[in-house]
Amino acid sequence: MKRPVVLAVVLASALARAVAAAPRDPGASEVRTRVRAYRAAHEAAILEEFVDLLSVPNVASDTPNIEKNAERISAALGKRGIRAELLRVAGAPPVVYGELRAPGASRTLILYAHYDGQRVVPSQWAGDPWKPVLRDKPLEEGGREIPLAGAALDPESRLYARSASDDKAPIVALLAALDALKAGGFSLPANLKFFFEGEEEAGSPHLETILKTYAGLLRGDLWLLFDGPVHQSRRMQIYFGARGVTEVELTTYGALRRLHSGHYGNWAPNPIVELAHLVAGMRDTNGRITIPGFADDVRPLTESERRAIAAVPDTDGDLKRELALARGEGGEEKLIEAIMRPALNLRGFSGGEVGSRATNSIPTEATASIDFRLVPDQTPAGVRKRFERYLEGQGYFLVADAPDRAARLAHPRIARLRWGPGYPPSRTSMDLPVSKAVERVVGEATGTPLIELPSLGGSIPMYLFAAERATPVIGIPIVNHDNNQHAANENLRLQNLWDGIEVCAALMARLGHAWQ
Amino acid sequence: MKRPVVLAVVLASALARAVAAAPRDPGASEVRTRVRAYRAAHEAAILEEFVDLLSVPNVASDTPNIEKNAERISAALGKRGIRAELLRVAGAPPVVYGELRAPGASRTLILYAHYDGQRVVPSQWAGDPWKPVLRDKPLEEGGREIPLAGAALDPESRLYARSASDDKAPIVALLAALDALKAGGFSLPANLKFFFEGEEEAGSPHLETILKTYAGLLRGDLWLLFDGPVHQSRRMQIYFGARGVTEVELTTYGALRRLHSGHYGNWAPNPIVELAHLVAGMRDTNGRITIPGFADDVRPLTESERRAIAAVPDTDGDLKRELALARGEGGEEKLIEAIMRPALNLRGFSGGEVGSRATNSIPTEATASIDFRLVPDQTPAGVRKRFERYLEGQGYFLVADAPDRAARLAHPRIARLRWGPGYPPSRTSMDLPVSKAVERVVGEATGTPLIELPSLGGSIPMYLFAAERATPVIGIPIVNHDNNQHAANENLRLQNLWDGIEVCAALMARLGHAWQ
Repeated sequence: MKRPVVLAVVLASALARAVAAAPRDPGASEVRTRVRAYRAAHEAAILEEFVDLLSVPNVASDTPNIEKNAERISAALGKRGIRAELLRVAGAPPVVYGELRAPGASRTLILYAHYDGQRVVPSQWAGDPWKPVLRDKPLEEGGREIPLAGAALDPESRLYARSASDDKAPIVALLAALDALKAGGFSLPANLKFFFEGEEEAGSPHLETILKTYAGLLRGDLWLLFDGPVHQSRRMQIYFGARGVTEVELTTYGALRRLHSGHYGNWAPNPIVELAHLVAGMRDTNGRITIPGFADDVRPLTESERRAIAAVPDTDGDLKRELALARGEGGEEKLIEAIMRPALNLRGFSGGEVGSRATNSIPTEATASIDFRLVPDQTPAGVRKRFERYLEGQGYFLVADAPDRAARLAHPRIARLRWGPGYPPSRTSMDLPVSKAVERVVGEATGTPLIELPSLGGSIPMYLFAAERATPVIGIPIVNHDNNQHAANENLRLQNLWDGIEVCAALMARLGHAWQ
Repeated sequence: MKRPVVLAVVLASALARAVAAAPRDPGASEVRTRVRAYRAAHEAAILEEFVDLLSVPNVASDTPNIEKNAERISAALGKRGIRAELLRVAGAPPVVYGELRAPGASRTLILYAHYDGQRVVPSQWAGDPWKPVLRDKPLEEGGREIPLAGAALDPESRLYARSASDDKAPIVALLAALDALKAGGFSLPANLKFFFEGEEEAGSPHLETILKTYAGLLRGDLWLLFDGPVHQSRRMQIYFGARGVTEVELTTYGALRRLHSGHYGNWAPNPIVELAHLVAGMRDTNGRITIPGFADDVRPLTESERRAIAAVPDTDGDLKRELALARGEGGEEKLIEAIMRPALNLRGFSGGEVGSRATNSIPTEATASIDFRLVPDQTPAGVRKRFERYLEGQGYFLVADAPDRAARLAHPRIARLRWGPGYPPSRTSMDLPVSKAVERVVGEATGTPLIELPSLGGSIPMYLFAAERATPVIGIPIVNHDNNQHAANENLRLQNLWDGIEVCAALMARLGHAWQ
């Protein structure tokens, strides 16, 4: 007797959903066809808008230029009929925020990207980092500059500029996707909120405050983070987590002044040698951190995470050839496995001089710059505690400022630590209905098997988005892996932008339907 | 029946010596009194000549200026009636050579100094390294610039310029001593030959050729090397040897291009970490070299050398306070003991970037600059062999030039070695009659107990002088120990120049008598 009732409820519920979700899901093929046609007809205009945005320097600390970036992106949203505003908290670059309501939609997607870029060392660049240049192939393969407009664009050509990949490409892809969907006559099945941050590469020191200050405005059902690169195989991948990060500068000290290495060598402590021993003691050459207790907080991978990792295609051989590496640090360990572990990277080491500037003297100090990558359930505070205990265990007295004469005379070994900003790792369950829906929409958009990563090797502050109301957070990278991200001569492969536009459009036009 | 004959021979021999050695030894007191009076009356003129010489840049590779230095010194000898000439071999700065014959003298002293100086890093200097400035006290104690001429000169004031100590001070001291002896009416009991080198700080790559080319001209009975600093207690010391030296630049490699530390950390080898492990493996933090077999060639000290070392005053405590050091590398080991051992000094270490230039990336290479100090019977070739075996033992493939893609793909670990010039150590026996005579003349000139070092910590190519005909070689340092030699803001304490003039004069006027 109960069956008809159950059936009626199910039918009513399905009907209600059908009404709420009207119009119907246009399907992957239709979205792809129309968006691709639109893009093909508008490549020059898309690129022009991109170049315009890349021409504004975007280091987070460069306030006048950061403001100029925010204004341009804000204007670009306005041009699409999106009410845009700048979310501000004291001392932070503004977040460019925009809203696009879908009539009748019950779900809200928040689309994240960041418009600031990593610092540059101009001398290492082939050109001005903020004068975008198109090259026929990668610089490393002898790529030559080609005109930005005019002839048909080779999808294998590369656009060179700071943030061409990380992370202005997704902003431009989202804008172009909006244009393409409008031109194609699609309606949106979910509300969209755009959230473009301006200090991600500076460690997002104000993101938490911004998210709290504007919590009402930023209510939503899913964060989609457009950041990071696609897989080395060029296949799309989505990620459900990211490693956390924290940084430290470590300085050791010798005598107050430089000393002749012949007259004082063996007797006056050499701060380079001290620092080399500290570095060697914290990290082996096989990618393993040897600081006692460092892995204590590491949560083991779940069964589904292990399966996803095992399914990731093995492109390590190609990658090694590309990078001219005869070995990986972890021997036979795959890259995808390696980045599931915590990492300790030496960003720099400097003491005395090398090359023609070297003299036969003992330097007065040496500094190492280190970044740590954290996995669940590590925290920056926990890493800091274990790192400092390790140094103390090596006999070092820890200071935050350069030690004065009295401190130097009181302590045989002194290490100065300057901790940078940091944040913890994060992971969304791969088994949620929304996780499955995103997987389907992105997979169908590209037409190739999707790679699913429990966690990205890089760091983005996913934990902040997830923390409030436990909202799911999923990352959708679109840029090429070989983009020189964070280094000199950053670039974007054009085909990645074209593909990215299609993925963005599919998520906007279909996820509201697929997520049942 | 043989006695009278023997006696007659002995008498005849003594008579011959008395005639040959005429006029008589004037004695320490007379030399000191007259030389000091001369100096006191001519301080401004001595300083003027010194400043003039220090005003010419003198890095060995700066040929036009090196030639200018040689011309000025040559002219200064000429002014004293000494026939001067420039000894040349292809590609080398000239040696300024001069001769002063003493009528009736049977012995010839060769007086060595060098007029070139260590490279400079101008940004580290308080002023122009080649614009000499007088300061009322050391810069480190807040020394302020004072006029070079005019008022009476404070003997504690310091003259700042590259080579103010190392090694133009002895050249000026020898010239002033000649003037003072002439003014005092002294005659010379030994022939003098002056030999001023122009590329000592570049490792003396042509000295051997020069000594061989001009072997006839450079015949003599004793080399006196005026180089190095006096003891840290400010007492005079003489040295009978010097450590040898050799240098190497060691570079390790990572991937062909910089990589994002989040996406590739733990997997792409980090060249800083590799290099830190190599450094830590070759040298502990207590001043001990841990390269296998490195000490195999080290000759133990003799009994008389041990006694001399034990008699050296212990000023380590003062020195540590001055340098703000809470410990010596070798714990309780004295400085004088430490420098009798071989040394491995890290001159510099560079990879990636630190501070505000650091980015979260894995560097492509890292370089360490190393200098070795050698003791008898080590040789540069032996050190090189053991160092290279050590690296090979750590799994490194050694190359002389930057490895190409094929080499990188063929070898898991590659180290590039660039060996600099080098030479072996040297030691003259402390028990020779001439060693005793030098000890007496210098000791009496200063009126304080002399410190005798079996070897200097620093390196000068004593082995070359000794090698030809096993001529004894003894070093006579006159400059202050805290002169910032080889580093920025090199300086000379004026009292050391005044004392140096008296010691030079005593050796010229008395050693020919004392050496029986």
